[in-house]
Amino acid sequence: MTSMGDKGSVQTQTKVLSQGCWTEVSCPCCVSKQVEPLVLIQLSDNVQPVTKRWLISLIEASKRHGGAALLTHPGEDECRNVIVVSAPRCTLLRATEDLGLCKKYHNEEMASFSYHDRDNFTNVDDMQEFLTLAERQYIVKNELDSLQAQKKQRIPGIPEAPGVLEAWENICQKLVRAGVIKDIFPLHDQQRLNDLGRRWYSKKQIWGQPLDAIQSYFGSTVAFYFSFLDFYTWALVPPAFLGLVLTFLLPGGGGVVKEQAGEGAMEEDDDGPSVSGHMVQAVFSMLWSTLFIELWKRRSSSLSHRWGTLNLAERFAGPRPGFHGTLGLNPETGRLEPLFPEWQRQLRVGLVSLPLVGLLMGLVVLGMTCFYHGEALVQGFHQDSGSLFSGVLLYMPSMAHIVYTNMLGNVYHAVAMQLTEWENHREESSFQNHHTTKVLLFTFFNNFAVLFHIAFYKQDLPLLRKRLASMLIGNQLVNQCTEVVVPFIVDRFLSAPHKKEQEDDLEMDKLRAQRSLPPYPGLFAEYIELLLQFGYLSLFSCVYPLTAVLLLLNNITEIRGDAYKICKLFRKPFSAPVSNMGVWQTAFEVLGFVSVMSNCWLLLLSPRVQEFCLEGGISGKNIILVAILVEHVLILVKMVLAFMIPDEPDWVRIKREQIEFNSMQALGQQKL
Amino acid sequence: MTSMGDKGSVQTQTKVLSQGCWTEVSCPCCVSKQVEPLVLIQLSDNVQPVTKRWLISLIEASKRHGGAALLTHPGEDECRNVIVVSAPRCTLLRATEDLGLCKKYHNEEMASFSYHDRDNFTNVDDMQEFLTLAERQYIVKNELDSLQAQKKQRIPGIPEAPGVLEAWENICQKLVRAGVIKDIFPLHDQQRLNDLGRRWYSKKQIWGQPLDAIQSYFGSTVAFYFSFLDFYTWALVPPAFLGLVLTFLLPGGGGVVKEQAGEGAMEEDDDGPSVSGHMVQAVFSMLWSTLFIELWKRRSSSLSHRWGTLNLAERFAGPRPGFHGTLGLNPETGRLEPLFPEWQRQLRVGLVSLPLVGLLMGLVVLGMTCFYHGEALVQGFHQDSGSLFSGVLLYMPSMAHIVYTNMLGNVYHAVAMQLTEWENHREESSFQNHHTTKVLLFTFFNNFAVLFHIAFYKQDLPLLRKRLASMLIGNQLVNQCTEVVVPFIVDRFLSAPHKKEQEDDLEMDKLRAQRSLPPYPGLFAEYIELLLQFGYLSLFSCVYPLTAVLLLLNNITEIRGDAYKICKLFRKPFSAPVSNMGVWQTAFEVLGFVSVMSNCWLLLLSPRVQEFCLEGGISGKNIILVAILVEHVLILVKMVLAFMIPDEPDWVRIKREQIEFNSMQALGQQKL
Repeated sequence: MTSMGDKGSVQTQTKVLSQGCWTEVSCPCCVSKQVEPLVLIQLSDNVQPVTKRWLISLIEASKRHGGAALLTHPGEDECRNVIVVSAPRCTLLRATEDLGLCKKYHNEEMASFSYHDRDNFTNVDDMQEFLTLAERQYIVKNELDSLQAQKKQRIPGIPEAPGVLEAWENICQKLVRAGVIKDIFPLHDQQRLNDLGRRWYSKKQIWGQPLDAIQSYFGSTVAFYFSFLDFYTWALVPPAFLGLVLTFLLPGGGGVVKEQAGEGAMEEDDDGPSVSGHMVQAVFSMLWSTLFIELWKRRSSSLSHRWGTLNLAERFAGPRPGFHGTLGLNPETGRLEPLFPEWQRQLRVGLVSLPLVGLLMGLVVLGMTCFYHGEALVQGFHQDSGSLFSGVLLYMPSMAHIVYTNMLGNVYHAVAMQLTEWENHREESSFQNHHTTKVLLFTFFNNFAVLFHIAFYKQDLPLLRKRLASMLIGNQLVNQCTEVVVPFIVDRFLSAPHKKEQEDDLEMDKLRAQRSLPPYPGLFAEYIELLLQFGYLSLFSCVYPLTAVLLLLNNITEIRGDAYKICKLFRKPFSAPVSNMGVWQTAFEVLGFVSVMSNCWLLLLSPRVQEFCLEGGISGKNIILVAILVEHVLILVKMVLAFMIPDEPDWVRIKREQIEFNSMQALGQQKL
Repeated sequence: MTSMGDKGSVQTQTKVLSQGCWTEVSCPCCVSKQVEPLVLIQLSDNVQPVTKRWLISLIEASKRHGGAALLTHPGEDECRNVIVVSAPRCTLLRATEDLGLCKKYHNEEMASFSYHDRDNFTNVDDMQEFLTLAERQYIVKNELDSLQAQKKQRIPGIPEAPGVLEAWENICQKLVRAGVIKDIFPLHDQQRLNDLGRRWYSKKQIWGQPLDAIQSYFGSTVAFYFSFLDFYTWALVPPAFLGLVLTFLLPGGGGVVKEQAGEGAMEEDDDGPSVSGHMVQAVFSMLWSTLFIELWKRRSSSLSHRWGTLNLAERFAGPRPGFHGTLGLNPETGRLEPLFPEWQRQLRVGLVSLPLVGLLMGLVVLGMTCFYHGEALVQGFHQDSGSLFSGVLLYMPSMAHIVYTNMLGNVYHAVAMQLTEWENHREESSFQNHHTTKVLLFTFFNNFAVLFHIAFYKQDLPLLRKRLASMLIGNQLVNQCTEVVVPFIVDRFLSAPHKKEQEDDLEMDKLRAQRSLPPYPGLFAEYIELLLQFGYLSLFSCVYPLTAVLLLLNNITEIRGDAYKICKLFRKPFSAPVSNMGVWQTAFEVLGFVSVMSNCWLLLLSPRVQEFCLEGGISGKNIILVAILVEHVLILVKMVLAFMIPDEPDWVRIKREQIEFNSMQALGQQKL
């Protein structure tokens, strides 16, 4: 799949950047006719030539001399403030081993790549086939990020303090702080991108996505998101079907909110689903969520095997840039690097981050409480006086609440980033997971606070149903607009001339065009959208059975919209090889368990269930006890189910254990 | 610690078995002046000499020829029906590598033993120092167990069908079934045993246990039990202290059951602890149980590192005897062995074992329900008629229930064993865990059914308190009697002459003496006793705060009693190297979570708490809701706590990761 696109693109893309300006390679195996531009370093406009030369020499220098062992192109005359970077074969192969990527061995099995054993891997002579574009670009970024000053020195061309590099200081970070480097980003390969787009979001392509091609072009982080989106959309079919049946076919069905004349009218909505429908829906959605997540884990691990990320060695690689500590020998790998004790990090997470996050969540609740109090107060005042002033005053609480929520959100985001930095995670994935968890908790809380308030405090089911429907439909309309319609308009009418120009023009212009695109904002917004959806679906589904149908419709367009966005509207993002969705998977799983509690509670509140119980002669107190029992049993069932379904398919487990067995064997024989 | 005891014992024990009868060793490295008898194979009395000779030749044959590569001694003239087995150095070392045991490397670190690299390990020339006695004996058993027929053949001296060995059939199992082998057990080393006893359960030794010596003599399975018992006893100090304070110092304290004249009198017991005491006790015990288990996990992993069992390779060793399947190449190790798909085992566990176990538990409940019904019926009848016949009838329900419970217990034990065999586990530890889980669930259920019935169905707190106290005191008295007093009497008065004789007599008499001892019944009974204790303590502690004090007193004698029992009263058990307590640890952990539910429920029932709430103006329904909320929050806190405390100390994690890193490195370099 990768092969054809790759070969074609190399020819297109490398023909223009003048060949002579690339670094000469000394290593015979690294000589190739064409050098593929991978990453662009955008320097500030007023950078001194001496600084640029110094940086280029550093990037080109061998590892032994503290360089990154990469190839550079200083850019054409009109583009003085860029450095284009590529990587020679040796550097790529060594980095592949360091990352712990699995590649195809000569016996067609996946095996952890080993530099010493390189000749037994297939395609090892052709880097464009051996590594995906995303991997090559990530390796370049990784090498650049790991540049460290060997000793205390001055950066040429930068005066005073910002120009002094301490020993072992990270050079790229320093240059970014000093304003020399404005940005580092991977370059698009237009031909491959167009090929990918044709197979991904064109009109002909409705079912399925070219996941392997996505992984190859955008890397596994992005590919996992789209795989999950795909899987999730298919998984929505059964609950959507059930929702349709319950709403339109069963007697007493029809959880659709009737249009009600008076806004905020709170009359009993007697048109909800029947008791049995209610219960079927609730139990089904609780078991469905567990099945969904467990099956996804299996899918995820088989994707991870296919993409060679099953056995990543992030723990044994160098620490992420930004990690600091006292310099010492890493006890595991024996390399000199900053060390920071694990227990200290745990303490920081447990004793500072956790309480602070709790406090800020408390402030959300406080804000909401004040808002409701304020509103009641103002309404009372307005009813009493009825003046213009009090009429204006009516809007004050909501406005104050909006301002407060926004400010709190900004503060929270800053605090979350600061806290995570301060927790000083060694691995990038651990940093991402902790940061994501923090932001995610807050966003989730912020979005669901109102619904929880209605469900648990006001205990007003009709209002909850109305609110849920309006949030679902409203959110989807807004999202579809921003994600599909706007990009479509931009692409069709605004960027059309730009596109044509690209195809005729010189290489450097293409680079310049990419520079003008905004950086990709990351997958957080995409994932949180899915998580909120999943929240509406699993937490409150028994109130509004059509949720799944709406989400299904939404997701089908969402896939194309997201695909279009990442291909056309932004710079290409760097993407680390990952073996799963990380913390998002856990978030979906936790939500599944929380949903048991909320569904049991909602069933308990439902007037029809209460009626039903009273008819059956069960007292109010006993209903609660039964509900608690049901909740505990359901949670137990979910846990047993999760335990029973293995997290990886048998064949993946066997492959993984083969690798473990081989490395154990190797350890035993190595010391002969 | 091992060294001195070992050297002495070798001299004592090997001097008597006539040296000439041992197998000659051909391998130069295995030649030693003395051969240490490790394991005794007890044959049936009417075994044919030709069968014995065939078995001996098989045990002596090299691995290449399908033998076990061990040393044998055919026994002296008067002991025709025994074979004494020992192991040469090469066999021991190779088996050490296969087991994945860690041993001390020349740099004083623990490292996975590798036969190729043997010369870099300390003490590798002296097997008595290099391996513990338990490990040497386990290796011999393991080698014997792995004897397989190379082709279809007849066993000499056994006529007809029982004498035909199919290809790849397990030979030891076959011989046991054919009645040739009556028993295989490891031999005690009297001198070391006496040394150990002196340091373990003598009057001088009150604090602490010689854990390393226990591990060395009895193996890690036994050592983990005693370590846990030790840790658990110390961990009981804080709750015992709290219990004493709450009972005797605080106002309204005194949860001790007052002697009540009428048996079964159910008057309100107003002398329970105060509300705040109640709550403090409950919350404390819930958090304490999590802390206890988490700290034990850390202790357990550091013990496992110290004993070299951190990195066991059971998965990659051969399957356990009794495992069957279609013969094929193991995909992980590439060896020819029976294969059985994992998913099929999962299906058997999930679709057959789980429902059957559930059904049998249901029968327990059914039995209890029938018992209560029957009792009510009979009492009514007796009150009506008052005849002698109805008086006799009064005892019928309890007798029927006892008979029923016993029969059910026997059926259950048989079913559990059959089911676990049928699940066809490949690894011994997995078999043990599944079997233990089944029996454990039943025993636990059987023991607590009455208490749960009182707490949740009858909702009668005073009765619960009385019942708990009587069960605690009764059980402890019975246990102390059977475990300490009886053994003491047996040892002092009955076995004294026997002991003297042993010290003067010949080696073969010692062997005969060991044969007369009953086999060790295993640790199940010991562990379940601790688990039941822990259940009384954590599930119902807020009802009876003195539980911890009673348990603490009990455990201090329990340690000595158990130690005495295993040293003096039974044959030495085989003990596989294990890295933790296996399923028992999980059982304690699960109990910790269940205890949150039961404690919240008991607090809710407590008349004082209800009074307190009513005074505070909280309605009955809201009390329940508050209790649910508290329960969920406490479970959350427990989970966060469990997550925050790492399961292994930092230094163990680093050691483990070092080993992983080294084997990864080795894999990369091996294929040069």
